Formats: sequence, structure tokens, C-alpha cells
Amino acid sequence: MTTAVEPSDIVALGARASAMIDELGLISAEPERLVRLYLTPEHRRAADLVASWMREAGMEVAEDALGTVRGHFSAAGGGSDAAAKRLLLGSHIDTVIDAGKYDGPLGVIVAILAVEHIVRRGLKLPIAIDVLAFGDEEGSRFPSTLSTSAACAGVFDPASLASADRQGVTLTEALKAYGKDPRAIPAAAYRRDEVAGYVEVHIEQGPVLEQNNEPLGVVTAIIGQSRLNVTLVGEAGHAGTVPMRLRRDALAGAAELILAIERIGREHADKHMVATVGRIKATPGAPNIIPGRVALTVDLRCMSDDVRRSAINQMQGEGWRIVEARRLQVEFEPFHEAATTECAPALQDILAAAIADLGHRPLRLPSGAGHDAQMMARLCPAAMLFVRCRGGLSHNPAEYASPADMGLAVAAVIRFIERFETG
Amino acid sequence: MTTAVEPSDIVALGARASAMIDELGLISAEPERLVRLYLTPEHRRAADLVASWMREAGMEVAEDALGTVRGHFSAAGGGSDAAAKRLLLGSHIDTVIDAGKYDGPLGVIVAILAVEHIVRRGLKLPIAIDVLAFGDEEGSRFPSTLSTSAACAGVFDPASLASADRQGVTLTEALKAYGKDPRAIPAAAYRRDEVAGYVEVHIEQGPVLEQNNEPLGVVTAIIGQSRLNVTLVGEAGHAGTVPMRLRRDALAGAAELILAIERIGREHADKHMVATVGRIKATPGAPNIIPGRVALTVDLRCMSDDVRRSAINQMQGEGWRIVEARRLQVEFEPFHEAATTECAPALQDILAAAIADLGHRPLRLPSGAGHDAQMMARLCPAAMLFVRCRGGLSHNPAEYASPADMGLAVAAVIRFIERFETG
Repeated sequence: MTTAVEPSDIVALGARASAMIDELGLISAEPERLVRLYLTPEHRRAADLVASWMREAGMEVAEDALGTVRGHFSAAGGGSDAAAKRLLLGSHIDTVIDAGKYDGPLGVIVAILAVEHIVRRGLKLPIAIDVLAFGDEEGSRFPSTLSTSAACAGVFDPASLASADRQGVTLTEALKAYGKDPRAIPAAAYRRDEVAGYVEVHIEQGPVLEQNNEPLGVVTAIIGQSRLNVTLVGEAGHAGTVPMRLRRDALAGAAELILAIERIGREHADKHMVATVGRIKATPGAPNIIPGRVALTVDLRCMSDDVRRSAINQMQGEGWRIVEARRLQVEFEPFHEAATTECAPALQDILAAAIADLGHRPLRLPSGAGHDAQMMARLCPAAMLFVRCRGGLSHNPAEYASPADMGLAVAAVIRFIERFETG
Repeated sequence: MTTAVEPSDIVALGARASAMIDELGLISAEPERLVRLYLTPEHRRAADLVASWMREAGMEVAEDALGTVRGHFSAAGGGSDAAAKRLLLGSHIDTVIDAGKYDGPLGVIVAILAVEHIVRRGLKLPIAIDVLAFGDEEGSRFPSTLSTSAACAGVFDPASLASADRQGVTLTEALKAYGKDPRAIPAAAYRRDEVAGYVEVHIEQGPVLEQNNEPLGVVTAIIGQSRLNVTLVGEAGHAGTVPMRLRRDALAGAAELILAIERIGREHADKHMVATVGRIKATPGAPNIIPGRVALTVDLRCMSDDVRRSAINQMQGEGWRIVEARRLQVEFEPFHEAATTECAPALQDILAAAIADLGHRPLRLPSGAGHDAQMMARLCPAAMLFVRCRGGLSHNPAEYASPADMGLAVAAVIRFIERFETG
């Protein structure tokens, strides 16, 4: 089989990817750590940089009502592609707080480099390509996540417009400040008949590929998840004058609940269950005051949607038991819910063939992290390519993928596109 | 026995105290809750208001190098009081975050009203009076507490000048911004031979007086306390991709420690022990990231200094056990330590007699809260008068003392001063 990518191309593409990752990684709200939240000045700068790369790669660039940057590559090198279906390639450019620089940007950069390579080689495709750079995957600013890909998939929830960030700014207000018109969100949706599929490249964020000594993997499913806000309310009081037996300490109750959540997560390891309390706030928050109120988040993931739902019930049962004994109140408020999403088998097979074309073994593995592909799967067949990362580290400044592996990822996407047109 | 305070005076003084409490309670950094921290613009405004009240009451006003407002009333109504000893009356005007309006200000206001009453009645005293309005009792801004009374007592710790608030502003910087010269702190100390005693009026902050149906009480001792910063360090990671068994979750470890601290506090109820974790911060603090680091505070109080010290050892032992099992690290850093302070028996007796003069039963009780009297006891005989508060509530916006009880407190201080001069 002939391929449009030579080994020397792979080295060059890997170096390009690495330099672009570094350049994008400099765009941060803080000098000492990477923080790039949705609809902030940093998001604007990152979007502008990505748009400039898309134009250099030969794409037309537009932005939709939620700020997703869309680079369009016409079928047959431009012209009459009204009838041609589109292949969508994408990922996100927002980050968690104190992030690594690969999570999200890698998928956008690999897609741009693949299109650029195809344009430079003058390959003719019977299909158009859109590269999508989403802005709200991590959910680090607003309670919702995946809202930008939801809009492209036509499943955006208008209720999230009223949700607010920690400064009280609503999504509607933030969109307007970013120069967007929330009324145009419905127009951001692709028509089902114009898209042929969606493929997302992402670092694995886990240790499986590294342990198997393979650079690339095919994702079988994205594990479902639930996120909840939990609030415990007791009574604030003076740390020196309220006897232990009279206390209604919301933080001591929260501590019991955190351990119960951990226990529940451990019980279902066979179903890939993980349970995390990532954020906690005790108020009023002074050393000499008994906390009267604690707010915390729960992130629960599991391959089986049924087991996940029953674990939430179990968690609530534990919560109610804890607060009854401590004369507190508790409230569980789900704010994100995603069922386990199976990746499209046909696309998985083409990705596997593309990896094999490059001389590697196409490992198949599930994703414990959520991805925009979950939303895109509600629009069209969707699949994901994982890239090995060091130590399984992610959401951490030490996150790392090698230039060689990133070059292979670009080559695999180019091979995927070639096979997709012909396959 | 004749007294300079009539029942009608008590009603009027209570109404004055209530109006002054309300006026001072309006000075806050936030519109929705009472927040008045040391060396802030709010502290400045409160100090100016207190100074104006002192002047109206007939006192000369000065401020020392740490911002303590000092109203001086000369012996024999002014003139040659160089030889006369001073009786010190005081309390503080800083607050916790989301405070009630009585904790601190009441003691300053009662002292001013007592002096004003004495001035208006033209009573001649063989002793001078200084009313002190301290600015750093709660320790809500800087790690240290009681620094302002420590300076007056001549036991200020210069090391605290380098400590910083949560914005990184050091005490030295804050003092300079407030217009003070840290080099003048030693001059703020009273000479032991010029002071006769210190008396502080404060709401009880507990339920004992209310349960006994008495408006006033004499404090026997201020229970000792230790405050520690505890830091747990694990490893941040992606909430979806790190299996439960591989996690080093600092927050789950902190939850275990919080419950151990509560358990230790409960074990020594007979020694008036209370243990509180009032502040907690998990970083990075996103719903989908395993916390890699948790910082929390411990506040531990106990009538027995030995039992308190052994409880800290017990707490550290629990911490080390927890982090070993979880592959975390833990550090305990004490930042405030105060031994149990006995109140001066002779002053306790005069306060008890003053309460009896007003027709009430002088209940004696310990203070679970820390007070400036702890520092002042290192300079001179010190005592405290407690005022009943509703429901034992304090460090809480619902904090309340009735005008009638506050009027009685002013009358008791006037009687104390009369008895002190003659006794």
C-alpha cells in the first residue's frame, strides 16, 4: 500500500506539532501556570492563533455563536462542495486550572497539520473537511461542559445559558462580552445529512498505551459520567465556645461523605468506576469558626450506566444517613450527566487500519475521560484516536506526549482520511 | 451603699450602647455581611469613629504603632496625673468574616460609656483610665492574633511582622500603608509600674449565662489554645483516568484527618476541649481533577495545657498514620499558641461585688474563646466581665446582646471603677 506520508514527513510533522503545542501553551491567564477558560481574553487569543494556523493550512475560517473556531477545507481543493459531505475533525482549546498543554490542543493541531499536509501534497478528496476548535470542554468556568460541541451537534441545552461562573457572570453575559449572539446558537448545528463522521485525536490521559509500548490506540467507548454539586448545611459557631456535642459542623459531615464516596468508587473497580471530590468550599472559612456550610463536587464515572446510577443512589443514601446523625441538611444537585458512548465500529476499524499502515499494533481501549466526541456522536458516527502520554499524567503541568508520537498521530489521521475517502 | 448609677441611667446607657453597636456594625468591607479586618480601610473608619466617641466622652486620643486607639482619661479630671496609675479597659474592633456586631466592639463601647458617665457626673478618681480599642484580636487577616494587645503588654513578637495575609501583603507592609512605623512598636508597651490592671467586657459567646438566667458573669480563666496549619500533599490527576487504587488523593486523606481531629476533641470533653477545622483549601480545585494538595487549619482549645499538648501529639500521630496508608505527605505547622490564662482573683472579686451591687448573682465561668486579656495578663492583673448573649451564638450575624444587659454591663464597670479606687 502506498501512503502520502513518508517517515521523514512524520518526523517533521511531530516537530511542527510540538512547536505549535508550545506556542499555544504560552497563552494563559496566569504567568506561573496554564489557565485558559472559556470566553476569556486567553480563549480569544488562543482562538485567533488557531484561526491563523487554519488559514495558513489553506482553510477558510469562521466562528460560530459559541466561539467554536471552524476551519473549512473544500472538497476537491475548493469550489463546488455544496453536495460533498464533510468529515469533522476536532478537539478543544480550553483548559483546566493548572493544566498540561496537550489536553485538547493536540487534537486541533493534529487535524490542522493533517489538512495542511493534504493541501500541500495536492491530494484530491471527494469529501470536505471541517476542523473544529471547541472552547468549552473542561467545564472549568461554567457548571456545564461540552456546550460548544453540543451546539455543533444540535443538542445544546438552552438552560445552560443562565448558569453562572464563580464571579456570577452568566453564560449569556460572557457570550455577549465575547461578541457573540446567543440567538444564533441553533444555526451552529450541522445538518445530519451534511456530515459523514467525527474523529477526535487526544492524549490518552491514562497509562495503558505506555504500559503496552504502543504510540496510538483506538477508543472503543467513552465512559459515562455524572457530576453533582453537594451542599451540607449545619450551623456556624465560635470554635472556642460551642461544646463538641452541641456542634452542627458541616465540614465534619462533609469529611464523612468524602470517605463514603471514595468507598463507593472502590467497590466497583471491575466496571472502571472512579469517584472524585475535586472541589470543596467551607464557609465562613476562618480558623476559629465552625463551618456552617460546605459545598463540594462529585465526579463519578463508570462503564455501566446502570451501575453508575445505582452508585449515585448509594451515595445519596450515605449522605442522608450522615446528616441525620449530625443534625445537618444535605442537597445533591446533578449538573452534568453523560451516558457511556460507544464509538462507531466502522470508524474504529478505519483508525485501526491507519495505525497498522504505519506499522503499529492498533490497541483498543475505553476512555475514562469525557470528550467532545460524546456530543458529536449524537450527530454522526464518531470515533477517537488516543496518543500515548508519559506516566498517564494529565490535568497536570507534567503532562507530556513525545514529538515522535504526535507525528505518528498526524500520519494516522492522514491515512484515516485517505482510507475514509476510498473506504 | 450609694452608687453613681441609677436604674434610669442603666436604661439610657443600654440604649446608647445599642445605638453605638449598630453604628459601628455598619462599617464593613462588604455590603451583605460584616467583615472588618485589621489595617484595612474599614479598620481606619472604625478607629476614627471610636476616637470621636472617646473625645466626646472627655478623653485625649492617641494611636500607637500598631493602630490601637487609646483614649486617656486623666486622674482627678485632668492635670497632674503623671504619678497616678492607670486602669486599662479595652477590647477589639476587628471582626471575623461574616461576623456579628457585638464581638469586640461591645467592650470598647461599654468602657467609653463608663468613662463618659464618670466625666459627666464629675466624679474624682485617684486613678487614670485608658480605654484601648485593639485592631488584631481575631486573626482573620494575618496568621497571628492578639498582636495589638501584645504590643501594649510589651510582648509583641517581631517575627510576626514578616507574616503575610492571603494576598501576600506582609504585616510590615500593611502597617506602613496604614501610616504606621513598625520601629515604634516597642514604644507602644506600657511600663509595668504605670498600670494597675486591665478589665475587658465581652459577650459570653456561649450559653452559660443565658441558661442560668443571669445578665453578667465573671471570667475565671481564658482557656488555652493552639492553632496549626496542616498541609497534605498527594498527586493531582485526571478524575476519569486514574484508577482508585493508584490515587494519592490529598482530600480523601484530609477527610480522614478531619474526622480524627473531631474524635480527639470529643475524647476530652471533661477538660473543656474543643477541636475545629475551620478552613480548608483543596488544589487545584476543579470538579474533574483529583486534589493534589489540601491545606487546612486546626483550632484546639483545652482548660489543661498538658492535655492540649498531648492532643496535638495524638493528632499528629493520626496524621502520619493516615498519610502512610495513602502514600501522601503531611506537615503540621503551629502558628498560634496560648496557655490557659487565670484571671486575677482580686479583680474577679471586685467585678463580682460590682455585679452584686446591681442586684445580680455574680456567676463565675471560664472563657472558651481567646481574648486580648490573655496578652494583657502578661503585663498586669487582668480580668473579664461577660455579658449574656442570645443562644450562645457568636461569630455569626445572628449574635445578639440586649440593650438592658449592655446597660447593666456599663453600670457594673462604673461600679468596678468606684470600688477599684476605694478598694
